[in-house]
Amino acid sequence: MTLHTRPLHQLDAWQAAEALARRDIQSLDLVRACLDRIGERDAEIHAFVELNADAALALARTLDAGPVRGLLHGLPFGVKDLLDTADLPTAYGSPIYAGQQPLADAAAVALCREAGAVLLGKTVSTELANMHPSVTRNPHNLQHTPGGSSSGSAAAVADGMLPLALGTQTAGSLIRPAAFCGIVGYKPSHNRVSRAGVKSLSETLDTIGGFGRSVRDVALLGAVLTGDTRLADPRNFDASASSAPRIGLCATPDWSLADEDTQQAWAQAEKALAGFAQPVTLPAELQGLVARQKAVQTFETARSLRHEHRHHAQRLSAPLLALLEDGMRISGETHAQNLQAVAQQRHVANELFRDLDVLLAPSAIGEAPAGLTTTGDPLFCRGWTLLGLPCIHLPFARGRTGLPVGLQLVGRFADDHRLLAAAHWVHERLTR
Amino acid sequence: MTLHTRPLHQLDAWQAAEALARRDIQSLDLVRACLDRIGERDAEIHAFVELNADAALALARTLDAGPVRGLLHGLPFGVKDLLDTADLPTAYGSPIYAGQQPLADAAAVALCREAGAVLLGKTVSTELANMHPSVTRNPHNLQHTPGGSSSGSAAAVADGMLPLALGTQTAGSLIRPAAFCGIVGYKPSHNRVSRAGVKSLSETLDTIGGFGRSVRDVALLGAVLTGDTRLADPRNFDASASSAPRIGLCATPDWSLADEDTQQAWAQAEKALAGFAQPVTLPAELQGLVARQKAVQTFETARSLRHEHRHHAQRLSAPLLALLEDGMRISGETHAQNLQAVAQQRHVANELFRDLDVLLAPSAIGEAPAGLTTTGDPLFCRGWTLLGLPCIHLPFARGRTGLPVGLQLVGRFADDHRLLAAAHWVHERLTR
Repeated sequence: MTLHTRPLHQLDAWQAAEALARRDIQSLDLVRACLDRIGERDAEIHAFVELNADAALALARTLDAGPVRGLLHGLPFGVKDLLDTADLPTAYGSPIYAGQQPLADAAAVALCREAGAVLLGKTVSTELANMHPSVTRNPHNLQHTPGGSSSGSAAAVADGMLPLALGTQTAGSLIRPAAFCGIVGYKPSHNRVSRAGVKSLSETLDTIGGFGRSVRDVALLGAVLTGDTRLADPRNFDASASSAPRIGLCATPDWSLADEDTQQAWAQAEKALAGFAQPVTLPAELQGLVARQKAVQTFETARSLRHEHRHHAQRLSAPLLALLEDGMRISGETHAQNLQAVAQQRHVANELFRDLDVLLAPSAIGEAPAGLTTTGDPLFCRGWTLLGLPCIHLPFARGRTGLPVGLQLVGRFADDHRLLAAAHWVHERLTR
Repeated sequence: MTLHTRPLHQLDAWQAAEALARRDIQSLDLVRACLDRIGERDAEIHAFVELNADAALALARTLDAGPVRGLLHGLPFGVKDLLDTADLPTAYGSPIYAGQQPLADAAAVALCREAGAVLLGKTVSTELANMHPSVTRNPHNLQHTPGGSSSGSAAAVADGMLPLALGTQTAGSLIRPAAFCGIVGYKPSHNRVSRAGVKSLSETLDTIGGFGRSVRDVALLGAVLTGDTRLADPRNFDASASSAPRIGLCATPDWSLADEDTQQAWAQAEKALAGFAQPVTLPAELQGLVARQKAVQTFETARSLRHEHRHHAQRLSAPLLALLEDGMRISGETHAQNLQAVAQQRHVANELFRDLDVLLAPSAIGEAPAGLTTTGDPLFCRGWTLLGLPCIHLPFARGRTGLPVGLQLVGRFADDHRLLAAAHWVHERLTR
């Protein structure tokens, strides 16, 4: 397949990056193609809160005329409006922060720019990255949610408005919207990507990651964000150089809540991976992860947003206000016990990977729910987020109403390079 | 001793808090006494970057006329200028951020205010909480450093300008200035206190804590910051209710670098604690902590300050610039290995506390160094910070030039209540 059989704005990020580095295509043309697509579609999708068109075009011209700066040279990208940007307002999805202009870029934004990426705009976050839905719609069906809280980033990448975008996950805010929008979403290991300049909700859980249309796209992004070049090693994506990963099938204790669409995708994956995968049951020490994740998130969010709760309660949604009130009712003694238990459970979780490279697990209950009154349930993401393990969503199926369905792979802590290599191998098998 | 044998500004925070709650003293008088002391002394000490006098006096009047709001009702406090404040500029000790006005309080500030504390001002931080010294002087001898990076908070509490102040530690920025200024410094367990609204340097290490003049002072502060009422349980401070802690004497692998003053303090403590303490040698898995802490801090700081490094290099000090350049030379692969090793070492460290409540360890090499060209060496703090363990500095001796000397106690992760109870017991024995 040559590049020009597809419009520029539909290229995978890694394909565009290679073509840009070879000067086969120009950043200016790619930025224009994305801006055109945004112009056509965003009045319906509502993925963006701020656009940076003039600055992006000017930077693209500069990049086209100069040396290749890094792995993301000339690639347009979007940033969830939970991350600070020095040249665009940052409102965290909340009227409390409308028009706020930070003095510095978040570290993740600065690293992408240093690698040559072109900031096209800020994407919609739900209110303070919590569960209250935003205005963004699912590009596959405007009557459905795109998921959240990284709603705009996922919808923009899925719709061809951007090849790459940054998001964050505290419960399931990267993997769930990736699943609902049918793209690849990558949550790195906890604490591998600096959160400097990102509105803090739950320090035990908050993790920066991103979206692309292929595993190789998010691998590029991951290499830039972590500084670990192994993540984007071309051998990871070369069938002749990579060996089959050892895969555990972990349906999780909540499997009975997966709907028919997720069950069908699971059956399809079991078939495609036969011979490489074996069932894995979580040990007794890893029971109760979902309830503990909820308690940790609720306690920590209530404290992180203490100022907003005390001074701007009337500008918080009722669901967020209820969560903050719940959080203030959890005792610090209970939280200390939860933190000790999490440390122990993270230790136990790493033992799972003694004889395995990755776990396959559900990403979501099923397709994106209809309506915009919910962003869906992060149930199947909560446990992995609590354990701090790297996760990647792989889209490969369709549900009963034609919306995307897929599954996630989970890796060992700080073994993101191995997860991404396995994810490419698995995704090839699931989609061929 | 009755309260009024000491001037108001010299009362311990817990004594003042009890007197305020009983309405034996007025917050207005205490705030005035602190402001007077600041007026007398701060032209020499340089502990403050911003004062909030009018607002503090007004709030004190309101508090005196209303119900008791919480554990810190009516108590003046100071905040290291690394933490955001909604009503005072926040510059992180750097000209890059001169005059920056945040929209919200940091979570730690909001929690103190909610508990009734009165913000008196922002205290001096070294440049972006790193090693380049600030203007603050040691109140015990103006020719010596107060330590850093929480220089102003430590000096202000030591000099009677404030009963309580917030600081942060990434290497030794709470324990070292507490040691040099002869006060109690408390670094909670990593990740127990929300860092929302605090300039981020190293997420593996950055920890919010504070200073007081007694263990009971920082226990009050800790209870407010963690929401864990066990930290301030009066039984912790009642000799008839508390039993002797099981103490390990851990001189650390760097003991040969401790100077004569620290060695004398150590010998004094061994004698005072005889019968309750036994020597502890760190297991082989816990070797190399200092080098790993430096590598983690350097790598993470370089990424957290990527924007400042790229856009404001000319406004960074030469030492900080050199650290950022060092950090960008550490590979992401090395950092991933360090993060895996830290997770394993934190697990091993907790095993140390199976038969012990606390470890006694050096806080600093010796007295505060002469001159203002260094804030001293955080050597003896780096390992405990890397392990995420709670630490408290106990002042009890004097060195050869008459400056304060002491030692720190280290507790099990998230067992801060046990550490504080033990610290009170030990401090009583060391100072009687």
